[in-house]
Amino acid sequence: MKVLQFVLKNDPLKKPRVGLIIEGEVKKILDLETVDDKLPNTVIELLKQKPNFFTDVTGISLASLEQDDILLEDVILLPPVSGMDKVVCVGMNYKDHCEEQNVPVPKEPIFFSKFSSSVVGPKDSIPYPDVTQELDYEVELAVVIGKKGKNIPRDKALDYVLGYTVAHDVSARDWQLKKNGGQWLIGKTMDAFCPIGPWIVTKSDIADLYNLGIRCRVNGETKQDSNTGQLVHRVENVIELLSKFVTLLPGDIILTGTPPGVGVFAKPPFFLKRGDKVECEIDEIGCIENKII
Amino acid sequence: MKVLQFVLKNDPLKKPRVGLIIEGEVKKILDLETVDDKLPNTVIELLKQKPNFFTDVTGISLASLEQDDILLEDVILLPPVSGMDKVVCVGMNYKDHCEEQNVPVPKEPIFFSKFSSSVVGPKDSIPYPDVTQELDYEVELAVVIGKKGKNIPRDKALDYVLGYTVAHDVSARDWQLKKNGGQWLIGKTMDAFCPIGPWIVTKSDIADLYNLGIRCRVNGETKQDSNTGQLVHRVENVIELLSKFVTLLPGDIILTGTPPGVGVFAKPPFFLKRGDKVECEIDEIGCIENKII
Repeated sequence: MKVLQFVLKNDPLKKPRVGLIIEGEVKKILDLETVDDKLPNTVIELLKQKPNFFTDVTGISLASLEQDDILLEDVILLPPVSGMDKVVCVGMNYKDHCEEQNVPVPKEPIFFSKFSSSVVGPKDSIPYPDVTQELDYEVELAVVIGKKGKNIPRDKALDYVLGYTVAHDVSARDWQLKKNGGQWLIGKTMDAFCPIGPWIVTKSDIADLYNLGIRCRVNGETKQDSNTGQLVHRVENVIELLSKFVTLLPGDIILTGTPPGVGVFAKPPFFLKRGDKVECEIDEIGCIENKII
Repeated sequence: MKVLQFVLKNDPLKKPRVGLIIEGEVKKILDLETVDDKLPNTVIELLKQKPNFFTDVTGISLASLEQDDILLEDVILLPPVSGMDKVVCVGMNYKDHCEEQNVPVPKEPIFFSKFSSSVVGPKDSIPYPDVTQELDYEVELAVVIGKKGKNIPRDKALDYVLGYTVAHDVSARDWQLKKNGGQWLIGKTMDAFCPIGPWIVTKSDIADLYNLGIRCRVNGETKQDSNTGQLVHRVENVIELLSKFVTLLPGDIILTGTPPGVGVFAKPPFFLKRGDKVECEIDEIGCIENKII
């Protein structure tokens, strides 16, 4: 099942809605409002009020699907979750990305973060910030937390996961690596620096989380092309460690790191410019496409 | 005027409420619900829906104060704002704190962050995290953003400020300084690592923002004792720079840095332990008191 947030193109009020795409019906969206108009109209509120909603929903949805479905081309996709407490990112978490930098693989995940307000939709544009000269791309697998948890053991970690989405960890390398006293925050969290989507694929629909092709293309040219099998610290381990520090909350997302091929380590370095189109894609999840403007 | 969030001790539902304390009536709280029961019951929703509410409110409140006031001892104080998009912190921003570390004063503010979920109330307890052996205190002046803004020039910066509160930037020094690949995030954002309060003093009620005594006491012993006149990067400059990177939103808070006297730089180093009581105090704002449990 795919979980998404959208507005109807013909809705003058642009009301956000939560939708489902049931397996096999890839172009038809079930608007949850048509199932029950008292349901909250955001994924995060749904998760807070009904932690088991998305695991229990299949029966209801299938029954309603026939008459009330919406075509994908009639909607504008929003980020599939927004307004979360945390956007946590893991640094240097692909073996091949560490090799590209000639740095040792970190023994433990390195965590940094973005502000929730940097999250934008799967086709939203990214305004080029005046303050950087080194804008770079990073495709990442993002985990969406489904329920509240602290001190979660790794063998229970996936119980706390709703599903997975594609993230673009946009990075201003000058601010990440050369300025702000070594703290990556500013270089990672400028406005619109976290496109996600196009939807959340619920965990049961991913056959093997650690064998997914993951790619980034800039203007159609493949820049990153790896596999989630290269992840150093797997999702279960990341959740175990992170939840020792902080309580994970429904809607929190964890960006699990990027594979090699980013612009800053290219020879010569390659940076994004206005007009560039960046596509980030993960097998079995989907593709997001964001233009630098 | 002071703006606060509270629950009534005798309310079985523990409904959050927004209150005002009008100058001179320090022990009497006006519950905004008694002014208009359609007003939102959180400061952040009030700011979003009515950006000028707290500047326009004085007349209404004074009229209602006589009959509907609540005594301070009848309430439990919540953090005066919560659920914000950003908790931004400025590192090494007191001249005397840089001298204590023998490091040069940073030419530009260094920004890091905490998760919004680490924010707790002025008398809430801080659970000692199992993962640290070096828990430390930091008293800080916190700025509360009142309205949305991007690229704010310094001479307009205070137009975007609602007021000021006291913050305790609780820090796990081992995780801040020795672990997590040099990224401070984890050492700064464990659960309950950001007590704030007891209220927001609106900006017009602070006579001179850069001449406020700022102190931290541990078990009654003064550990930090400085003055906001020692701030390197003033609030106006911090807002100007920060808003070049990110859109500031109503309810965002900025912790402006801590003066000298923190435990990690004491000789020998001094760390907090379970049972310790930490008081953070700023003149003209108030005092928060949090116990390590």
